[in-house]
Amino acid sequence: MQLWFSELQTPHMKISCRVKEVLHREKSPYQEIAVLDTYQFGRMLTLDDVIQTSERDEFVYHEMLVHLPLLTHRDPRRVLVIGGGDGGSVREVLKHPSVEQVVLAEIDERVVEVARCFLPTISCALHDPRVRLQIGDGIRHVQENPNTYDVILVDSTDPVGPAVGLFSADFYRSVHAALRPGGVFAAQTESPFFNQDLIKRVYQDVSAIFTAAGLYLAVVPTYPGGMWSFTIGAKDGALHGWSRERAAGLPTRYYSPELHEEAFTLPVFVKELLEKE
Amino acid sequence: MQLWFSELQTPHMKISCRVKEVLHREKSPYQEIAVLDTYQFGRMLTLDDVIQTSERDEFVYHEMLVHLPLLTHRDPRRVLVIGGGDGGSVREVLKHPSVEQVVLAEIDERVVEVARCFLPTISCALHDPRVRLQIGDGIRHVQENPNTYDVILVDSTDPVGPAVGLFSADFYRSVHAALRPGGVFAAQTESPFFNQDLIKRVYQDVSAIFTAAGLYLAVVPTYPGGMWSFTIGAKDGALHGWSRERAAGLPTRYYSPELHEEAFTLPVFVKELLEKE
Repeated sequence: MQLWFSELQTPHMKISCRVKEVLHREKSPYQEIAVLDTYQFGRMLTLDDVIQTSERDEFVYHEMLVHLPLLTHRDPRRVLVIGGGDGGSVREVLKHPSVEQVVLAEIDERVVEVARCFLPTISCALHDPRVRLQIGDGIRHVQENPNTYDVILVDSTDPVGPAVGLFSADFYRSVHAALRPGGVFAAQTESPFFNQDLIKRVYQDVSAIFTAAGLYLAVVPTYPGGMWSFTIGAKDGALHGWSRERAAGLPTRYYSPELHEEAFTLPVFVKELLEKE
Repeated sequence: MQLWFSELQTPHMKISCRVKEVLHREKSPYQEIAVLDTYQFGRMLTLDDVIQTSERDEFVYHEMLVHLPLLTHRDPRRVLVIGGGDGGSVREVLKHPSVEQVVLAEIDERVVEVARCFLPTISCALHDPRVRLQIGDGIRHVQENPNTYDVILVDSTDPVGPAVGLFSADFYRSVHAALRPGGVFAAQTESPFFNQDLIKRVYQDVSAIFTAAGLYLAVVPTYPGGMWSFTIGAKDGALHGWSRERAAGLPTRYYSPELHEEAFTLPVFVKELLEKE
C-alpha cells in the first residue's frame, strides 16, 4: 500500500513521506497529534499536520537548540524548556552535568504522553528526577518566575496559533527578566529561506533586549528548505566565551566544538537580511 | 487551479512545488526536459522529473561548486565544466578575471538550448566569447585531453543513467590526468543524509588519486534533505592555500571568504562517515 503523509510547508511547497503505519492519532484540546511510522525518517511526530520531529533527524535540531546556549552559560544549573513536549531538548540539557533542574513548560500534556508512549528514544530523559513537568502556558510561567533560570530555551511550533506569543518582544522581555544574572536564551526561529521577516524582527528584538545576540544555523531535513535558524541572547556578556572544555565531553551526532562558532557564520543573503535597515 | 509538480527524492520521500505554468516540455535523445514556472522557486528546470536548478536557489549550488575550487587554484586560466548545461556554473566561473577559457562539456545540447530560452538569469554567460560549448560525452572529453585544464568541475545529475560514469574511480583518474600541474577538481556529490555510501566511496577514491581531498557542504532547499555535499581534490599541494584576496572581490549571495573554510567543518555524523573503515 502506498500511504503518504504530506505537509504543506509553505502555501506553495510540500514534503511527503511514505508511511508504514499510523501509530497514533488524537485531537487534544490544542491540536491534532499524530505519530507516523515512516520509511525514511522512522517514527515521526506531527502536530496539526506539521512535522515536529522524527527519530532519524531529531538529533540535529535538539543538539543545536540546546548545546550552544548551555555551553555559553558559565554554570547552568536551572534550565527552562518552553514547548518541547517530545522531550528531546530535555534529553540534551541533561547531558550537561552542572544542571540540577530542568523545567519543561509544555501547554499540551497529551504531547508529552504521546511522546512517552511512542517516541522512547526522544522522550527517554523525561523520567529523570531532575525534570519538573509544568503543564501550562509557557508565557505565563516566564512572567511569574522572575530571576529564576540560568538558561531558557524556546522549543516551539511554528508561529501560528498558541505559539505566536513566543515570537513577540513582550515575551523576550519576560524571558530576560526570568533569567538570573549571566543568563542565556535561545529559540528556534524558522527558515532563512521562507521566514525572513520573522527572523529579522526576532533578531532585532533580541538584540535590543539582551546584551549580546546572535543567529546560528543547522540543517534539519524534515523542516522547510533544510536550513534552520536559532536566535540566541546573553543577558550579560558575550556569546563567544563558551566552554570548549565542557563541549569536548558531550556525546553528539551533529554538534561539535568546531561547529559551534562556525554555526554563526551566515551565508551572504542571511547576513544581509540581518544587517539591512 | 492547483497544479503540482512532485519529485520522488528517495523511494520514500517527495518534494512538491505548486506550478503556475508549464513553460516547456520535450523529450531529448537523453531525457525529458521541462521548465516549470513555480510559485515558490520561480522558474525551475527538471530532467526526468528531478529538479536540477531553480531561479530562487540556484545561487547556492553554483557559487559553492565553483568558487571554492577556483580560489584554491593559484591562477585558473582554463576551466572545464562537465554537465552544467543550464550555464549557472559557467556564469560563476567567469566572475574570476584570470579565466581565459571555459569549456562546457554537456552531453545534451537541448538542455543548453532550453536554458538559453527559458532561464536567462542562469544561462546569461553562455554567450561570452571565453565559453566553448562542447556537446558530447564529458568522460571521453577528459580522456582525450590530458594535461589541459587548471580546474575541472563536475556539475552532473544524480548517479543514474549517463551520469553513473562521472562517479567512478576510472573517471577521477582521467580527470587527474586532464589537469595541468597545480590543477583542482570539484564535483557535486549528493546528500550526506541519503547517499552516504556514495559520498564515502567518492571521498576515498579522490583521496587516493589526488594529493589532497576534502568534502564541503552547502544548503540547497530544492535538493533532498537540504544539505548537499561537494568533493574537492588538488593535484599538487593542499586545499587551504586559497586566495582570500581574490575571494573578497567576488559578487556572491551565499559564498563568502568566512564561509569558505567553514564549509569543510562537518557535522559529527558526516565526519564519522568519512573516517570509518
